[in-house]
Amino acid sequence: MCRRPTAMSNMDIKPWLRRYEDVDQFYLSTEVVVCGYGGAGAAAALEARRAGADVLVLERASGGGGSTQMSSCEMYLGGSGGTALQKDVGLEDSTDNMIAYLSECFGPHGDPEKIRLYAEGAAGHFDWVESLGVPYKREVYLERVVVPSSDESLLFTGNERAWPFTELAEPVPRGHVPSKEGDEGGKIFMQALMKIVEAEGALIKSDARVIALLQDDANRVRGVVARIDGQEQAIEATRGVILTAGGFVQNRTMLEKHCAQTIPFGEPYGNQWDMGDGIQMGMAAGGNTINMDQCFITFAFYPPAKLTYGILVNNKGQRYINEDAYLARLGHYASLQEHQQVFMLAQHEDFELPHYMDPPPPIVGTGDTIAEAEAEAGLPLGSLQATVDYYNTHAAVGEDPLFHKASNWLKPIDKPPFAIISLKPADTKYPLGENTGYLMFTLGGLETRPTGEVLTPQGDVIPGLYAAGRTTAGLPRTAKGYGSGMSVGDATFFGRMAGKQAAAT
Amino acid sequence: MCRRPTAMSNMDIKPWLRRYEDVDQFYLSTEVVVCGYGGAGAAAALEARRAGADVLVLERASGGGGSTQMSSCEMYLGGSGGTALQKDVGLEDSTDNMIAYLSECFGPHGDPEKIRLYAEGAAGHFDWVESLGVPYKREVYLERVVVPSSDESLLFTGNERAWPFTELAEPVPRGHVPSKEGDEGGKIFMQALMKIVEAEGALIKSDARVIALLQDDANRVRGVVARIDGQEQAIEATRGVILTAGGFVQNRTMLEKHCAQTIPFGEPYGNQWDMGDGIQMGMAAGGNTINMDQCFITFAFYPPAKLTYGILVNNKGQRYINEDAYLARLGHYASLQEHQQVFMLAQHEDFELPHYMDPPPPIVGTGDTIAEAEAEAGLPLGSLQATVDYYNTHAAVGEDPLFHKASNWLKPIDKPPFAIISLKPADTKYPLGENTGYLMFTLGGLETRPTGEVLTPQGDVIPGLYAAGRTTAGLPRTAKGYGSGMSVGDATFFGRMAGKQAAAT
Repeated sequence: MCRRPTAMSNMDIKPWLRRYEDVDQFYLSTEVVVCGYGGAGAAAALEARRAGADVLVLERASGGGGSTQMSSCEMYLGGSGGTALQKDVGLEDSTDNMIAYLSECFGPHGDPEKIRLYAEGAAGHFDWVESLGVPYKREVYLERVVVPSSDESLLFTGNERAWPFTELAEPVPRGHVPSKEGDEGGKIFMQALMKIVEAEGALIKSDARVIALLQDDANRVRGVVARIDGQEQAIEATRGVILTAGGFVQNRTMLEKHCAQTIPFGEPYGNQWDMGDGIQMGMAAGGNTINMDQCFITFAFYPPAKLTYGILVNNKGQRYINEDAYLARLGHYASLQEHQQVFMLAQHEDFELPHYMDPPPPIVGTGDTIAEAEAEAGLPLGSLQATVDYYNTHAAVGEDPLFHKASNWLKPIDKPPFAIISLKPADTKYPLGENTGYLMFTLGGLETRPTGEVLTPQGDVIPGLYAAGRTTAGLPRTAKGYGSGMSVGDATFFGRMAGKQAAAT
Repeated sequence: MCRRPTAMSNMDIKPWLRRYEDVDQFYLSTEVVVCGYGGAGAAAALEARRAGADVLVLERASGGGGSTQMSSCEMYLGGSGGTALQKDVGLEDSTDNMIAYLSECFGPHGDPEKIRLYAEGAAGHFDWVESLGVPYKREVYLERVVVPSSDESLLFTGNERAWPFTELAEPVPRGHVPSKEGDEGGKIFMQALMKIVEAEGALIKSDARVIALLQDDANRVRGVVARIDGQEQAIEATRGVILTAGGFVQNRTMLEKHCAQTIPFGEPYGNQWDMGDGIQMGMAAGGNTINMDQCFITFAFYPPAKLTYGILVNNKGQRYINEDAYLARLGHYASLQEHQQVFMLAQHEDFELPHYMDPPPPIVGTGDTIAEAEAEAGLPLGSLQATVDYYNTHAAVGEDPLFHKASNWLKPIDKPPFAIISLKPADTKYPLGENTGYLMFTLGGLETRPTGEVLTPQGDVIPGLYAAGRTTAGLPRTAKGYGSGMSVGDATFFGRMAGKQAAAT
């Protein structure tokens, strides 16, 4: 005989989990339930449906799109000799080259199997995206930028042209962005994808918050409990449940527990429902979480690209990175400096305030000599002067012995006046956000196989449970090597794999 | 009606958890079961017993002691005006002073409530330790050392005398170590403690591995399953189960999942059963884990203390820390340098090989000029020279504008010959360990209240379940501010609280 859990015990201890055996009646029964209708969920729903499964998508918001729709929808794609777009602009990109690059990006945090499968399948994934009707212009944009305001569809969105990556892989642009003036890629992509998901017959229910998984006594996940029209409804999923509810960047409690060191540096960026619901449900069913302390952090002091001729220093006047690194890597290293206090020194001919900060970051030091600017900025006496002396000596001959900034960004900083900008988070503001700081989102979540199967701490599969996107620790694992397009690429690529796997069960 | 879980499902999905309702017969029933007989477990068992509870301690090894017995048993204690020992040697230490220090130690990783309770109770905790019959000599040792080979019982075991701590708190030595020639504090303490635990009537069972918790359908933990004499036995705990099974530094799989970035740097240090059993059982019952990526790392390039007159630089020839910082903080910052490659430069009068490395670390550069030594060590041309020029200019007047090393450790490095030692983990070996690298252990685990109550990801208490020691994320949270004695102090202090709480339930 066994006691039926009381409502209290469920609500207090495991609000995200209910016993399947305790369900008296199902609101409806389907084959695959997808929790969350963003990029990962929509991709999973489409593949599950195309594999012949009955699919129900539950979305907490009043409409689909998720954080993918808010993004530029850059997708980091390449390998297999090149995507159709890379080939059409005359670029080649081998799978090995992409694997070598991605392996350096994530280092010990990386998942070799996800990296390999992603590099092998990314070119085919681009064909799938195009088949949805998403427009890509066969032109490449090679300037140093975050998102091109013009309509080219291929650009560099990582550290491909920066040291040490240049020593390990051939630089190839892999950022694929839908072609449109401005920054509406996410909307273009999600509208096209959702239209097809619905045309193929997946059932979509918005304003439907999933509040618990249904797990049986043999630990198989057999459905969910959702709040629909104010009522708690049990829904059966005979093949599987796929968690695609985003990350936890909007959940302050989880951020404080897992990303305390990043909070003062970053400003949460993502849709309002990135509350970690999917991660917490997966944990309640026995799922493991990994990489929870890692976040993406942006640090776009450029454009203007010419600021790259300047140098970044910490509050000891020391350089700490090659300034031509990508914005996430710049953010990673800036976050490691004391008090996350970093400065940019530029000479007059290269100076212009960063375009992405509004109001612009404060100029904390100026002068006709480095010593004058250094003193006004409050840096230790002679520290920046010593750094600049060393930098100039080598820059004059096109070298950067310490950080290997590319020679095209090297020239002595010796033409006054000089200006020092403070790029400390507390001194900066991104127009996209409410608060000061650099945009961030989380890179930790449920541990999954590439198939989306959720793993326990012991490495066993939880039958009937799948996850993808930022609800999981996916392809991108650390800002140190993050490239734009890795998250949307990962969410849609592995979302599709999870959809196929769930439908095939 | 509900199905009884099959053996398969339990073994495959939740090997650490069984349903209480499925137990047909108990091997024995007691009030409090303690899993692990190290410092935390013994302290918990004693307090639970003294509070009147029947106590059973299950230990996987053939005898008690755990990692505490392997340690020097330094305990980081102070506050309340001073411990009896601090007072007897004429030192004063306020609770506020200790809180200010500990808060800086752990920064955003710290738990303010645990810090406050620990600082308020540490002096009383010392009285408790002495009451066990552990000998402490009323003498203070003020040299820069890791463990004194002489028999003084009070020493500095943290960053109290190093910047920036000197600006935030009054430096007071808080490392309390049992008085004995040599390094046998752990044995002295554990033997004294276990003798009393057993005298007070706690039942001890060695060679008894706990393999699962028993949780009922209302989520209360009501006992454990242990392997005793080759048989799986169910044991009931009517008041509570206390998990004190150590950290996970000996569990390679968990290290790779949570501490991948530290693995190349550190060598696991702890008893062979620090396999994360307690953490995994707690998770299986719904417990949350936090701080899993953080580890203690030692980096004792001293003694000899005179090496502190030298400077530590990374592979760019840049200094990155004040060399008079404590060994764990030195380890934290060394682990952040590129390829974790760091060097020490010393001049002839200060040079001597570190005592704790055997074989000694390699001398990779020597010369009558810095330029000569720098070139031989393969550092970027002129980089170390520039660093030394700046350092010497200010050291000559007793200043270190960049890292504020204490003036008593400052003097120009200008008397040849000069030597550069490589302190890269791969080049070093600690006599205590099998492999190269710096000793490490884990600082992440179950999230608990100061009472030892284990929390779910939602912050709710799991009834009947408690934990302490390295099975939890306790007082020490990061090597950046770790001081020797914080782990044994934490384990025994909060182990006692967990014992009292479980017995009072």
